[in-house]
This record gives sequence, C-alpha cells and structure tokens, in this order.
Amino acid sequence: MAHFTSLDELSTKEIERLIERGLQLKQGAPVQPIPTKTVANLFFEHSTRTKCSFDMAEHHLGLHVLPFETATSSVQKGETLLDTCKTLQAIGVDALVIRHGETGYYEQLQHHLSIPIINAGDGSGQHPTQSLLDLMTMYEVYGNVIDKIVVICGDLRHSRVARSNAHVLQRLGATVIGSGPREWFDETMGIEYREIDEAFASSDIIMLLRVQHERHLADQDFRATDYHLHYGLTRKRMEQLRPSAIILHPAPINRGVEIAEELVEHPQSRIFEQMTNGVFARMAILERAFNQQTTKETI
Amino acid sequence: MAHFTSLDELSTKEIERLIERGLQLKQGAPVQPIPTKTVANLFFEHSTRTKCSFDMAEHHLGLHVLPFETATSSVQKGETLLDTCKTLQAIGVDALVIRHGETGYYEQLQHHLSIPIINAGDGSGQHPTQSLLDLMTMYEVYGNVIDKIVVICGDLRHSRVARSNAHVLQRLGATVIGSGPREWFDETMGIEYREIDEAFASSDIIMLLRVQHERHLADQDFRATDYHLHYGLTRKRMEQLRPSAIILHPAPINRGVEIAEELVEHPQSRIFEQMTNGVFARMAILERAFNQQTTKETI
Amino acid sequence: MAHFTSLDELSTKEIERLIERGLQLKQGAPVQPIPTKTVANLFFEHSTRTKCSFDMAEHHLGLHVLPFETATSSVQKGETLLDTCKTLQAIGVDALVIRHGETGYYEQLQHHLSIPIINAGDGSGQHPTQSLLDLMTMYEVYGNVIDKIVVICGDLRHSRVARSNAHVLQRLGATVIGSGPREWFDETMGIEYREIDEAFASSDIIMLLRVQHERHLADQDFRATDYHLHYGLTRKRMEQLRPSAIILHPAPINRGVEIAEELVEHPQSRIFEQMTNGVFARMAILERAFNQQTTKETI
Repeated sequence: MAHFTSLDELSTKEIERLIERGLQLKQGAPVQPIPTKTVANLFFEHSTRTKCSFDMAEHHLGLHVLPFETATSSVQKGETLLDTCKTLQAIGVDALVIRHGETGYYEQLQHHLSIPIINAGDGSGQHPTQSLLDLMTMYEVYGNVIDKIVVICGDLRHSRVARSNAHVLQRLGATVIGSGPREWFDETMGIEYREIDEAFASSDIIMLLRVQHERHLADQDFRATDYHLHYGLTRKRMEQLRPSAIILHPAPINRGVEIAEELVEHPQSRIFEQMTNGVFARMAILERAFNQQTTKETI
Repeated sequence: MAHFTSLDELSTKEIERLIERGLQLKQGAPVQPIPTKTVANLFFEHSTRTKCSFDMAEHHLGLHVLPFETATSSVQKGETLLDTCKTLQAIGVDALVIRHGETGYYEQLQHHLSIPIINAGDGSGQHPTQSLLDLMTMYEVYGNVIDKIVVICGDLRHSRVARSNAHVLQRLGATVIGSGPREWFDETMGIEYREIDEAFASSDIIMLLRVQHERHLADQDFRATDYHLHYGLTRKRMEQLRPSAIILHPAPINRGVEIAEELVEHPQSRIFEQMTNGVFARMAILERAFNQQTTKETI
Repeated sequence: MAHFTSLDELSTKEIERLIERGLQLKQGAPVQPIPTKTVANLFFEHSTRTKCSFDMAEHHLGLHVLPFETATSSVQKGETLLDTCKTLQAIGVDALVIRHGETGYYEQLQHHLSIPIINAGDGSGQHPTQSLLDLMTMYEVYGNVIDKIVVICGDLRHSRVARSNAHVLQRLGATVIGSGPREWFDETMGIEYREIDEAFASSDIIMLLRVQHERHLADQDFRATDYHLHYGLTRKRMEQLRPSAIILHPAPINRGVEIAEELVEHPQSRIFEQMTNGVFARMAILERAFNQQTTKETI
C-alpha cells in the first residue's frame, strides 16, 4: 500500500524520483489520466494552499474528487476518524488526503484501511507534501542540495514543516541550521543553532517559518515589529544574503513580520514558486498512490 | 413527477424493482450516463454517509452536481426552503436531494416545484433511501424478506430509520419486532415489543439503531456501558444469534455502545456492506427521478 | 486584463453587447467550451443565487471550478485577500469570482494580479453581475430601456444593487426614480424621489429592494406588516400598475414584506426569470474574461 505519511518512510532514491517527476510534470511531461478513481480530501484544519493545491493536482490527473466538508460531516455527531475513513472506503473512495490536528493520526489508521492515505499535515508532526515541494523548489535552482547550507528560522519547536524538512535535508546531503528566537529552537531536532545575521549571510537557502497567530500574534507581549527587527528578513539582512541564495516560506505569510512587505516578491524569493511547485509535487505523490508508471529512475 | 419522499408512496412492485436494479448495478450492470442533467444536494443536517453516497451515485451516473453549502447560502439570510428550491430550479437544476430537520418538509414543497425531490431524511419522519439500501442488503443475503424476522433495537421513538423500515418490511412480508429500552419503544408503529435476548436469538436480521449523542449520550444519567450491557450487541448475545442472522446499523456507530467494538466487522455484520449498497440504491433512485429506462420488471 | 468590477468601467456598447450575448445564450446559441481553464469562486458573504448561478455558468462553459470554502481557508489564519488571490493564481487558477464585504476590495487587488477578477458584490458598493441580469431581463421584454421609467423602491442607501443599477440605467437612456421610506433614500445617487403610489402607477419597471434582515427586520421597532402596507407591492398597488409593467426583485424575497405572497409569481413578475437570466448573463461575463469570441457587435 503506497501510503505517503512521512518522508522518513521513503528511501532517498524514492524521494529524489518524486522530485524529478514533479519537475518533469512542471515542464509539461505527459500525464496518464486516472478518471476511474475517486479521491476525498479530508481537511480537519484550515488550509488554502495545501487543499487547493491537491484539488488542482487531482484535476490535472483527471481524478474524481468526492466533496467532503468536515464541518457538515458526521464527525460532528462524534464519529471517529477511523469510521469516517472506512465509510468513504466502503462507498468507493480510492485514496484519502488527510490533514488532522492529532500528531501521528495515521499510525493506527493505515493498518485498518485498504486504500492509501496521503498525509497533508498532522498536528505538530509531519507535513511531507510541503517538504517535497520545498525540496523540488531547491532542486529546481541547485540541481541537488549536497553541501548546501539551509537555515530554518522561526518557531522550530511548533513547526511540522521544520521537523519534516530538517531531517530529510540532512539525508539528502544538506547542512541544516536553526535560527530565530533561542527559546523557540528545538534541541531535539539534531541541528545547530546560529545567530540570525551570521546564519542568513552564510546560507544558500533561507526557510522562514510562519509566526503562528494562534500562538504568538495574539499574545500582548509579542510585538510583530520587534520580531521583524530581531528575527525577520529585513531589507538590511536581504542585502547581506548571498546573491545566489533563495528565500522560502510555507505561507500564509505575515507580511512585515517574518519578511518585509517589499521582499515577498523579491527576485530571490521563491515563495509563490513554491505554491506553483506544490501542485506538481502533489501530482507526483498521487501518481505514486495509484501506482502509475512515472519516470524511469535515472538518479 | 417522480418524487421520492417516502416508500409509502411506492407500490411493493416498484420498491422491489428498485432493489433489483440496485443489486444489478452492484454487479456491474451498464449505466446510461445522464451528463446533461444537474443535481443539487441540500443537506441542512450533518451527514457523511448519505451525502457522500449521493455524490458518488451522481458521479457514476455522469450527472453534474451543483455545489451547495447550506452554511454559506442565503438560508442564513432567512430565505425559506421553498424559495431556495425555486431558485435552484430557476437556474437550471434538474433534481434536488434534500435532508432537512423538519418532519414532512416535502409535503408542501413538492406541489410548488416542477423538478423531482429525493428525500434524504426529514426530521423524525422518513429516511427512504436508507430503507432502500437496508432492504437491498437483506435481499442480497436472503433473496426476499418473506417470513423473515427482523428486530429493530434501540431508540425507535426518535428514529426515522425505524419508522421507514418497520412499515415497508411488513408490506414486503417480514415480521418486525421492536426491542431495546421499553421507554424508547413506540406503540404507534404497529409492531410487537420483545425483550432483547429473546428477540435477538430468534431473528434473521438484527437492526441496531444509533444512540443519539445529542439526545442521550450527553445526558449525565445515561451510561454507555449500562446501555451496552442491557441493550447492545455484546459478545455474549452474538453467540446466541442464529448463524445465518445478519447485523445492520445505519451508522455512525457508537462503538462499545450499540455494538461491541470487535463485532463491527464480524463476518455476520453487514454494516460496511450497507454503505457500499447505499451508492447503488441511490443510483437506482436517481435513474428513476430522471425516468431512465432501467431493468425490465421481472418480479 | 478583462476585469469585471463595475459597469462604470464598460462602455454602453460593451454593456449592450453582453446583454445581447446573454439573450443569445438563453436562446441556445452555441458555446465554445473552455475546459482547460480553472475558475475559483470566493464568496466571503452568504449567497445562494449568485454563487450557484456562477457555478452553473461555469459548468455550461466547461470550465473547471476549484472548490474554495472561505470558512476553512487560511483566511481564518489571518491571510489577506491579496495573498489568498495570489496563492490561487500561483497554483494555476485562471480567473477569480469574488464577493467580499469590503466596498471596493478590488481596487488595489486588480493591480497585483495577472488573472481577471469578476466582482460578485463588494460591501455596499457594486453588484455589476446582478445589474447585467436585471438589464437583460428588461431588454428581453422591452428591447431596450430608452425612455423607460424605472422605480427602485426600498433601502436605496444600503443597496449595492440600487447603486449599480441607477447609474447604468441612466446611461442606457432610462429615467430612474427612487421610492420607499424617505429616510432610506440616498440623495447622492442623482435620482428623483417619488411617493410610492404615484411612482408605481407611472413606471414600466418596478425594482423592489430586499429589506435586510440584519439591518431592519431584527429591529423591534420595525414592523414587517407596516412596511408592506406603506412601501410594499400590495395587491391594491398591483392593480394600479400599468398592464405592461414588470416587477423585479434581486432576492432573497421577504414574502409579505416587499411583495405580497401571492404576487411573487404573478404574470407580471420576472423575479424567477431574473434568476434564470443570471446564468446566461454570467456566462457572457465569463466568456469576456477568457476573451472568447462572442457575438459580433450588431448594436
């Protein structure tokens, strides 16, 4: 069963094959439509990018998408996630894309289903489709990430994006550095902490993390302008970046907090390119779920 | 106008034709697509199974499904159900699938519309598409229900499933018995009450009803474990069932309340099969609404 | 870029071309499908008619509609409208239909996007697709509106329908009159106020505006029956109308308030016809957004 729950479950060879397939799809590689299959997207947490990106990827693959709204489903009557998934399986759904607030929600679930689960984010755990699109964006620029220096800056402790990325980037040969507020750094992630100005100036890839409204911005003691000054990508820090360095952000962006308003669309920013790439990364993941023949392994 | 609001409106011959058509569709009978027609699914109450099942049935028939979310519709501005339906008719919708909290909501409505209504559940009234899939599941096993003993167990008083089923089963030749808490039994349904152990041991078909969270499980005096012990399908009661007896439940299931966790997928359980059958039952109903030629009457 | 934000931006020639195209589509003019394009409908305010009408128009044009629910989007995480729109553009959406509570929301937005925006209503500003379908309904009856007398009756001050219509009707040659409660009249709209009985009796077109629940009907001092008596289309006023006069209402209707229950489907009422026309008006607008060749200009 080709579940896609965490990049840890995939070999580096398989990860690089997916990246390559995503880049080929972006360049117009032909798609073999899968019109006889149905997918349901179960988003139990807010999403624009990931949800819409999957919808678009499914459309490009000719898949049927079963409408599913968590707010009006029987989840509201207390139905468990397992029974909801088994129900969808019983009525003929062939794959499930799931975002859920519970970290590792898929661990038990995957053993009780005969259809693949694609993890679109689990609590503070993993966000492997975001990682794949991030990697695709880096490979698009650099070919690979061997010996590249990647700084991840912000609330590493609560970020599923950071966690997914830190590990896979190291497996693929990159050097990963953490930065931002010391108290938000996560010692358990197995990466080095560096002070922001030094970290930014020496990196090839700057990954800014979102300051989460629900955690920090509502906090009266938290000042967005202070954060920007101390831990954001200011115009001044921009000038210190390597000219070849690229800027990533998983979005939604807090303009003027993690990044200065006018830098969001700077030529070195790949923020909107990441979103474009997300569609193709997810097409590659969906093809895998349906065992479509994709590219030959050339890596 | 081929409304589908209550099985009481259909002859037994027509009911059995729909059951047969559903079973044929399940076995792969060819479908004549209806791509020029548009359906809207109006669900004013929570649903996973019924809503998704209709969506899937409509997909298999090649119908266009107009997205309609009650939460963001003008119903929120106080528009009546009639005006909402007339609006959809005016913009070109060809059939309406409606679940609504008001018992008998369709009675006035159907006289003001020129497009068919399919009742997907009305208050504590009817749930005829559920009845049809229940019947289909019984016919699949037994061929028909003549002289079969069916026990309906649980909150009969508030169950639209019970009400729909009790009547039609008797019309089709079955003996229907009520069981579960005495105070939840409904004398007006014209069926006999029997104590649970006796009822279960002598039945061919066990229909468990859902204990409604919103009515009972939130009640501090209500104890799920007590209910299970006194009125649920325990492992012990399972052992007393006839080996040929089948277990049905309209779902969502409260595992460990109406039925022991480990019995949900017991070989005698048809609970997930019911969901699968629901898609085909609804295809047969939709074909009827659009006057598609279906199977020849062979009953 | 073929934005469609306000009829003020279009020449009268272009407006009449759209009306004509809408009427041709209604009569069955062939459509050139646009299946390679994707549209997203962003409704930040409640809607049945406009939202469903766009969905149906998009279906008829063979467009792919990307599902987008504001309630579960990242808008809930504080994402700006601009970033939401840029995200959708980045993932491959080709046009945006937007209803938003902020008057003139599109003014800045349109300069930052490379895909067309279709305004489906902005705060108390414009509702140009409604205006177009209103015009289409008038042209269908009268051929044009030159020298026709149009009375707009109700809460002109808070109505985006009134504002859009008053201006364009005058540009197209009609005489526009305001009526209803004096205190709800808007002096800045450049139209004359007339007392209701006189206004109704002398008009060719009666446009009733909706009394907004959220503003008035919840007000304890506001009495629906008083409003009906003083400012509604009663049976008595109906008898005074010109036999050729037609009645319009943007809906949802408060039956018994703006119009007597039994007059909603009076032969002179075009209220449901407006909804039917809305689909074709929006098809014409979407064709324009995608630069489809439509009718030759024959006006």
